[in-house]
Amino acid sequence: MEYKPKHENYKRLVEESFQKQGIMKTIGASLDKVEPGECHISLSFSKSLSQQHGYIHGGVISTIADSSAGYAAFTLAPVDSTVLTTEFKINLLSPAKGDKFIAKAKVLKSGKTLQIVSSEVYAVDNDEEKLCAFLTASIMNMANKPETKS
Amino acid sequence: MEYKPKHENYKRLVEESFQKQGIMKTIGASLDKVEPGECHISLSFSKSLSQQHGYIHGGVISTIADSSAGYAAFTLAPVDSTVLTTEFKINLLSPAKGDKFIAKAKVLKSGKTLQIVSSEVYAVDNDEEKLCAFLTASIMNMANKPETKS
Amino acid sequence: MEYKPKHENYKRLVEESFQKQGIMKTIGASLDKVEPGECHISLSFSKSLSQQHGYIHGGVISTIADSSAGYAAFTLAPVDSTVLTTEFKINLLSPAKGDKFIAKAKVLKSGKTLQIVSSEVYAVDNDEEKLCAFLTASIMNMANKPETKS
Amino acid sequence: MEYKPKHENYKRLVEESFQKQGIMKTIGASLDKVEPGECHISLSFSKSLSQQHGYIHGGVISTIADSSAGYAAFTLAPVDSTVLTTEFKINLLSPAKGDKFIAKAKVLKSGKTLQIVSSEVYAVDNDEEKLCAFLTASIMNMANKPETKS
Repeated sequence: MEYKPKHENYKRLVEESFQKQGIMKTIGASLDKVEPGECHISLSFSKSLSQQHGYIHGGVISTIADSSAGYAAFTLAPVDSTVLTTEFKINLLSPAKGDKFIAKAKVLKSGKTLQIVSSEVYAVDNDEEKLCAFLTASIMNMANKPETKS
Repeated sequence: MEYKPKHENYKRLVEESFQKQGIMKTIGASLDKVEPGECHISLSFSKSLSQQHGYIHGGVISTIADSSAGYAAFTLAPVDSTVLTTEFKINLLSPAKGDKFIAKAKVLKSGKTLQIVSSEVYAVDNDEEKLCAFLTASIMNMANKPETKS
Repeated sequence: MEYKPKHENYKRLVEESFQKQGIMKTIGASLDKVEPGECHISLSFSKSLSQQHGYIHGGVISTIADSSAGYAAFTLAPVDSTVLTTEFKINLLSPAKGDKFIAKAKVLKSGKTLQIVSSEVYAVDNDEEKLCAFLTASIMNMANKPETKS
Repeated sequence: MEYKPKHENYKRLVEESFQKQGIMKTIGASLDKVEPGECHISLSFSKSLSQQHGYIHGGVISTIADSSAGYAAFTLAPVDSTVLTTEFKINLLSPAKGDKFIAKAKVLKSGKTLQIVSSEVYAVDNDEEKLCAFLTASIMNMANKPETKS
């Protein structure tokens, strides 16, 4: 589906918001792509993000998948609004083995107050991408909620 | 429901596994309670864990909720097995405002290969607990999977 | 949590809406309880509702769980509004064996535009209730949407 | 992804199981496609399947989406086994308006004991298909469970 952003500055607004997310810095995530209704966020492997078997923790995979979904929705939100995830489900299809992980989100349905977004997370090993997780999220458009200063 | 652990050392096994989760150290989480079919994990507020409005990121809340669910299930898993989350859904009921956050997991159904677990996450503000998130997870019992050395 | 309905006629409005749901008649469901933030819907076993092993189909269990959640939310919706389920997740904890099935819904969080509701479904066998499914749903309050004539 | 069925008779086994689901007859559903890792189930509009606004009830949409997911998984299950849905989440993207509804399921990941399947439900109005719901399900392979005689 082709989407049109509600304002010209959608890319800059996503980038500014991403900078304010302390957790993105903590886990070393980077914002790779921002298009109308789409967003990619990636992450390199680090032992500091692992679960007990040495792979990336499912919660960390969820963190980049959730943020990618939120920002995909944010590109389509009305001017002067912000977005909030109200729920998500994630299927962890295989252990998050790899050097790098990319969450690729796409808006499935863009409503006035609610947007439904999916995000596919790929593990990258020797330049080969393998689907390792799949998220669906409900994102609410919130009017006029001021963001915290970074 | 009252559950009986499959082995005597369930508490020690959970503690050892928790120590191996690099992400728990990174976000400053601590293991507060381990009983048959139950587990509590908590976290203090830190700006390094925030989303764009200054609250704790939903992915971080998910991380402690998911681990609490996994360890609640682990207390009931067969001897010589480990556990793996295959999916979870989380409802983020209100922004994660507070000084401290506690994920309290309970096993709803303990099957031979699959366990269903819920986890309630409370935000603690001036010693008052408020439900801020609710997770349900499917946890698979995996036979003989060796854990990574910490 | 204690909830207050937004209008006096919440019980009558739920009953009228329930009568308009053709599927409730088709599967033989009945409305057992309507209180602020709560709703129970039940169903008797019938082979016409079965899956391939002779138990009640998970989709039918979902149907009464979803409607119970929607009506629990409807009791708290603003005057002149209606409700719509935007998503739900259901864990099917055990096969739906029994003579009767009761879905018991409770609102977890009642927001202005979105309500989060859980519903526990019990299978009743010889007067003993056993939890067989657990649903969480997001219900949207919709302003002024006229309902179809029954 | 290309999948290979575990036995030659996968199509016949799905058809026989479908015949045993009493609910499929009750709601007038038909089995439209069975291929390795894929299954389509459709349904015509009927007032007897409606919710309060006159559209098809979300629980009915879930019923065909869940069965399509289960049968997509069944085509890949080991010989002499059956399948059971342990959980699903469905996003109801738009009201189920239309003459006909088709649930199209595809296996995302086929594990030895657990399969993860998605199903897209389309509303058909004047030969135009519109995505109206999206389901993800966990399906368990169960050894040697005899099916009820139809």
